[in-house]
Amino acid sequence: MPTLLLDKEKCLRNMEKMIGKASTNQLTLRPHCKTHQSAEIAGWLRDFGVKAITVSSLRMARYFAEAGWRDILVAFPFHPGEMEELIGLSEKCRLSILVDSPAALPFLHHIPHRVDFYVDIDTGYGRTGVRTENPELIEQIIVKAGTNPRLEFRGFYCHAGHSYKAGSRKENDPIHLKAISDLGKLKKQFEQYAPRLLYGDTPNCSMQEDFGEIDEITPGNFVFYDLVQVALGACSMEEIAVAMECPVAGRYPAGDRIVIHGGAVHFSKESLFQDGVPVYGQLVQQTEKGWTMGSDNIFLSSLSQEHGVLEQCADLVKTINIGENLLFLPVHSCLSANLMREYRTLEGEKITTLNT
Amino acid sequence: MPTLLLDKEKCLRNMEKMIGKASTNQLTLRPHCKTHQSAEIAGWLRDFGVKAITVSSLRMARYFAEAGWRDILVAFPFHPGEMEELIGLSEKCRLSILVDSPAALPFLHHIPHRVDFYVDIDTGYGRTGVRTENPELIEQIIVKAGTNPRLEFRGFYCHAGHSYKAGSRKENDPIHLKAISDLGKLKKQFEQYAPRLLYGDTPNCSMQEDFGEIDEITPGNFVFYDLVQVALGACSMEEIAVAMECPVAGRYPAGDRIVIHGGAVHFSKESLFQDGVPVYGQLVQQTEKGWTMGSDNIFLSSLSQEHGVLEQCADLVKTINIGENLLFLPVHSCLSANLMREYRTLEGEKITTLNT
Repeated sequence: MPTLLLDKEKCLRNMEKMIGKASTNQLTLRPHCKTHQSAEIAGWLRDFGVKAITVSSLRMARYFAEAGWRDILVAFPFHPGEMEELIGLSEKCRLSILVDSPAALPFLHHIPHRVDFYVDIDTGYGRTGVRTENPELIEQIIVKAGTNPRLEFRGFYCHAGHSYKAGSRKENDPIHLKAISDLGKLKKQFEQYAPRLLYGDTPNCSMQEDFGEIDEITPGNFVFYDLVQVALGACSMEEIAVAMECPVAGRYPAGDRIVIHGGAVHFSKESLFQDGVPVYGQLVQQTEKGWTMGSDNIFLSSLSQEHGVLEQCADLVKTINIGENLLFLPVHSCLSANLMREYRTLEGEKITTLNT
Repeated sequence: MPTLLLDKEKCLRNMEKMIGKASTNQLTLRPHCKTHQSAEIAGWLRDFGVKAITVSSLRMARYFAEAGWRDILVAFPFHPGEMEELIGLSEKCRLSILVDSPAALPFLHHIPHRVDFYVDIDTGYGRTGVRTENPELIEQIIVKAGTNPRLEFRGFYCHAGHSYKAGSRKENDPIHLKAISDLGKLKKQFEQYAPRLLYGDTPNCSMQEDFGEIDEITPGNFVFYDLVQVALGACSMEEIAVAMECPVAGRYPAGDRIVIHGGAVHFSKESLFQDGVPVYGQLVQQTEKGWTMGSDNIFLSSLSQEHGVLEQCADLVKTINIGENLLFLPVHSCLSANLMREYRTLEGEKITTLNT
């Protein structure tokens, strides 16, 4: 069976580095736990002094609340389908949600316990959030929410996810600069409410040094990183802390091809394009202590449900045997982790997740 | 929470149609259960008289064996990592595996119970299998396996998966014709072993009428179908038996955009391209009895982990409210079902799977 290997040392180093970055910039780190979805891994962050986390659903919030977290932001626009979960959770912990429309507020009218909210801000990503050019709408939300004594406006949240579309650090700079500038202006404009500014995706939090008026950063992927982050310039290959271990199921020397047990239900269908060809994972070399970059660039070039195909395998196809394991860095570690639902550390420890 | 709705009536009609097709052509239907991964849904096939199934892993085989299936083909090249599962299962049911290399045989040397095997044949797909142009290798495998009294050669298996790359029925015809012709020749060439011919992917089994010398067909996706199958011409929109129900989390009239709770961890990142734009799902209209095709073509055009984005929503963005549900036909129902891990029928019944 394919196994998701976790190099705990690398993971801890990634955590330490981001915590250092936050500390240098006097930022609170509120890491996004949707990447690992694991109480045990979140516990390592707690050991570094992290006190608050970000999640992407109320179901995930409940899981981490049960693991002892008492300050949780659900970074997803609140919608009334999750009312019951919200009420249950707000009794147990300090729960924060995102709001980007006055239409969401009436559903919160009868909440029995305090819930904090942040106004979700769109500085150009174009997914959710109130556009910074629309402070009237922000004002409307804050004023309308003010009539609800259990709903507390805490500040602004921004995920500048268009950083994932930037091809380089240089292309990313203006995205980041606009975001922190827009958020800084909002902080000033709404200073009567003393709003906190929450910001951050892994590329920006990894690459940028100036965070302006930001108070908290909420990156998630940095604990593992992946090939997407390498392509963006957010990390090095050596910092990627997870690798998929997949047994060889077939070798085809005439076609210069190896087939592994490891497909779309393990890696996900997230791809990168390298010289016009899709890449679903990159081969690394197993070592006694984990893995190291091989001398050749060998990629998983196609995936079906359970099969993965490596083409242009250099000499590997001549020497590898059926049943041997190959290791691959994933394209998008969040999606691979979500599918795999558990990890095995290099020391052989099994680590469970929300979905185990 | 996003929910995977199952229209049981449509699903039963899809089953009945494929069973009719098999019966007309005097073929045994050995459906692939990796699509639904559900003992209950496999039970509906059993009610139609189906006695044998196909699965994609030994773990899946065990699940269905526990549900009472006694004739199971694992349509994945055998590799020794799954030896323990294989031994356990071969005691409980008639287990068949795929072999495409003599190198796999030594691992099977000491199996304590009978295991059947099929030689996996590659008629041009280029994933796994022995190329039809290489009968010497087939002969080698059969002869070498013949020295193992518990290993029984049963015939040839072919998944002509390149049918998924064909843009139309017309492009698909030569793929199918070559496959059945190649398999027919192998049947003759190796007639001393009385090999059975197993064949089939959903596009070919849905569209083709002449199956030559084939004995059994093994399609899987036909129970649900999806947008990929519609694009290939294998089914109509109306035959798709599953839809993702997703709550609206945000509406942005100025951007002509709706954001739903439903992302890559629900739909998968499988996409189709429509006029150069990626499509991750197609909106349908909820009705009292299920759903119907809307008058506008509205697509999910981007997905992040939990968010889905609809752009160019016609008038929908003006009338929809936060919290209302929208329904979407999935691009690849197998991957969506694998991620969702359970179904809700239109009658409100919950149906579990291997991963529930």
